[in-house]
Amino acid sequence: MTWQTYLREQQDRFLAELLDFLHIPSVSALPEHAGDVQRAAEWVAERMRTAGIESVQILPTGGHPVVYGDWLHAPGKPTVLIYGHFDTQPADPLELWEHPPFEPVVRDGRVYARGASDDKGNMLPPILAVEALLRTTGALPVNVRFLFEGQEEIGSPQIPAFVKAHREMLACDLVVSSDGGQWSETEPVILTGLRGGCGVQIDVRGPNRDLHSGIYGGAVQNPIHALASILASMRGADGRILVEGFYDAVQPLTDDERRRFASAPFDEAAYMADLGVTALWGEAGYTVYERTWARPTLEINGVWGGFQGEGVKTVLPAEAHAKITCRLVANQDPATIVELIKAHVQQHTPPGVTVAVTPLKFLAKPYLMPFDHPGNRAARDVLVHMYGREPYEVRSGGSIPICTILLDELGVYTVNFAFALEDERQHSPNEFFRLSSFRRGQEGYCLLLERLADVG
Amino acid sequence: MTWQTYLREQQDRFLAELLDFLHIPSVSALPEHAGDVQRAAEWVAERMRTAGIESVQILPTGGHPVVYGDWLHAPGKPTVLIYGHFDTQPADPLELWEHPPFEPVVRDGRVYARGASDDKGNMLPPILAVEALLRTTGALPVNVRFLFEGQEEIGSPQIPAFVKAHREMLACDLVVSSDGGQWSETEPVILTGLRGGCGVQIDVRGPNRDLHSGIYGGAVQNPIHALASILASMRGADGRILVEGFYDAVQPLTDDERRRFASAPFDEAAYMADLGVTALWGEAGYTVYERTWARPTLEINGVWGGFQGEGVKTVLPAEAHAKITCRLVANQDPATIVELIKAHVQQHTPPGVTVAVTPLKFLAKPYLMPFDHPGNRAARDVLVHMYGREPYEVRSGGSIPICTILLDELGVYTVNFAFALEDERQHSPNEFFRLSSFRRGQEGYCLLLERLADVG
Repeated sequence: MTWQTYLREQQDRFLAELLDFLHIPSVSALPEHAGDVQRAAEWVAERMRTAGIESVQILPTGGHPVVYGDWLHAPGKPTVLIYGHFDTQPADPLELWEHPPFEPVVRDGRVYARGASDDKGNMLPPILAVEALLRTTGALPVNVRFLFEGQEEIGSPQIPAFVKAHREMLACDLVVSSDGGQWSETEPVILTGLRGGCGVQIDVRGPNRDLHSGIYGGAVQNPIHALASILASMRGADGRILVEGFYDAVQPLTDDERRRFASAPFDEAAYMADLGVTALWGEAGYTVYERTWARPTLEINGVWGGFQGEGVKTVLPAEAHAKITCRLVANQDPATIVELIKAHVQQHTPPGVTVAVTPLKFLAKPYLMPFDHPGNRAARDVLVHMYGREPYEVRSGGSIPICTILLDELGVYTVNFAFALEDERQHSPNEFFRLSSFRRGQEGYCLLLERLADVG
Repeated sequence: MTWQTYLREQQDRFLAELLDFLHIPSVSALPEHAGDVQRAAEWVAERMRTAGIESVQILPTGGHPVVYGDWLHAPGKPTVLIYGHFDTQPADPLELWEHPPFEPVVRDGRVYARGASDDKGNMLPPILAVEALLRTTGALPVNVRFLFEGQEEIGSPQIPAFVKAHREMLACDLVVSSDGGQWSETEPVILTGLRGGCGVQIDVRGPNRDLHSGIYGGAVQNPIHALASILASMRGADGRILVEGFYDAVQPLTDDERRRFASAPFDEAAYMADLGVTALWGEAGYTVYERTWARPTLEINGVWGGFQGEGVKTVLPAEAHAKITCRLVANQDPATIVELIKAHVQQHTPPGVTVAVTPLKFLAKPYLMPFDHPGNRAARDVLVHMYGREPYEVRSGGSIPICTILLDELGVYTVNFAFALEDERQHSPNEFFRLSSFRRGQEGYCLLLERLADVG
């Protein structure tokens, strides 16, 4: 029997198992669900054992656990570490769900449940693929390790230390992540980059109390004015960040990258309509994809100071505050950028106020993987085979720390190989996953593991 | 008997009457005290009748009432309108008062009560002075009208319409206001100006919802950045307001004015220590008094937008807001300044956001009275006689609409002639008034009315 036939024959059982898995409310953010996250870990471990995966173990992290397993009987072949997560986002607001979030419902070729698309429907396929290969061929084409975590949705707080402490156990030639997606049902992607990030809070203090702006207006520096001039000094009218040294480590976009980015569809009118803006805006000389995928940004996330109520209060306030986060690209270092911002603020603080710049708990290195990395080439070949067309090169404007953690600690890149689609309401009510994507994932992982056997 | 002797002999009674007056909790801001404000009006009317003032009447305004009275038997002599107010600020926080605020206590030559200094202890003396003159000389040296109001502490909302409707009744050659003060127990002042004011709220709107700053950062304009650049564009590093046309109507300071301002004591170290600032700051080329008394300002009173909580929220917010008020000097027109700000904001709005500028309910014309106006010269002569020294010329950075209302409607200036001191905790717990100032007010008004008889 071929693995293709095996997969086809087992689909009903696999779907039933997915529904079973989705019944577990493994919400990592809510302490009352800690036991459910543990149950999900146990469910995953058991399913891995059934698949024929060896050395399966639930490992403590100090927080939600990790599930490890491996199959290492392909001497001379690469070792691939497959990553995914079995925790989910919280389900609230519950009243917006058409069905209870942890009572999965199948309808019109979709399964509706919290975690269906992110990430249970995507992380189960590699286990099923391994089962199909082992049951039909008795072996895997490469060595495989699994690392499934239960804390991705809360930022993986204990994972860096866990990876550092288990370098040998996790040693591999390549990571493949099941936490990601494709462009559309007919268009595949290769994800080559993630932006990193860092942040600061700026606290401006002037007089020791709120003052009457009639009596004191003109006598002392107004902390809000000072803050406004500091904030305005950080960005030019052309959208360039003016923090000195901000772009020094930025890897410029190559013509190839720009060409590949440009091949991904972009409907500007629909994009603007969705956001309700009359114009897009950003660093001059770059497209929207370039700006959000491959150029760093500095955004003010919040600002406050003085009187915010109805009507008039003629106050010259004692304080003003702002929160700023940056998105960073290779090879910017988040801690260095924080220092550059501190220096900039110090240099642009007007007289009469004191300013404190405090780093926020948000430090993520940018991630960039060569488009022509052998792992990406393997994924590309599989995707071309399955979709009948070249994948787009895309990047994410957001930050997924795991890729950088694994690169730093294990020295390997992460190929993102998963099948979620943007409309599947990840993190929102009525999340769903396409059953076609569930099957595509199983087939895709069989093909990818076969293809990776040839990668040196 | 001279009026001097009369005043001396009646002091015990006058003090008892002041205490009686202070017992009335005539808090204009609190609806539950509306009856007390009315009672205070009746008390004042009765006291005026006792003094020999004629045509005394309590007049409706649509809000708290006004008390009018006159004595008009000095043909060929000027008519003086004496202004004051019988309402008080609220007394809270009550727990900070050493004695109940409306149970006046006399201690160490001071009377402690809400309204003692602002303005009951200052508005009663002109009535007592008129009584003393009438009882001892049988006449007044000038024609006198009285206008006492009960809504000064809530911004005199019905007074402009009242004055407009009673122009004939209030017709006069000069107003003398009993709502003001002196520099110290030994140093008198002549108040020649009050700043006016106006204000706007600025609402910046970008995308139709808060966006993920990772996914969208770089694609659309950030309303907080836009607001910061708008706010920063309004003021130069030298403290000058950059709103085009802002200074066009400003009457420049004369050398004489600057010299007189400079003669008023200013302890910079004490001023900074009180405010807790390490540097004073404002429009370059002007002293603190010049900046707060005679130069216009534009102060951001409040700013808000996006995330203000603990920690990190990587949001690109949908909106950002600011409130701004200006202090204006002669001859700036508040409504014109609002228009100039609107035009400036429009001109400095970066692409990708829409901005609304809404006027706030704060429109006060600046007030400026010539230092050598005959009314001021009369007051100066009386003050030199009483204090043995020249008064300082001072102005107030704040706004007192009544002076402008009376100037606009009656065409006359207001001499501020009152005896409060800055340490008397007006608007704060444990307000007090000096009995020496209470007596000084009685004597001062007798002298001033005599002196005004000679003013053409």
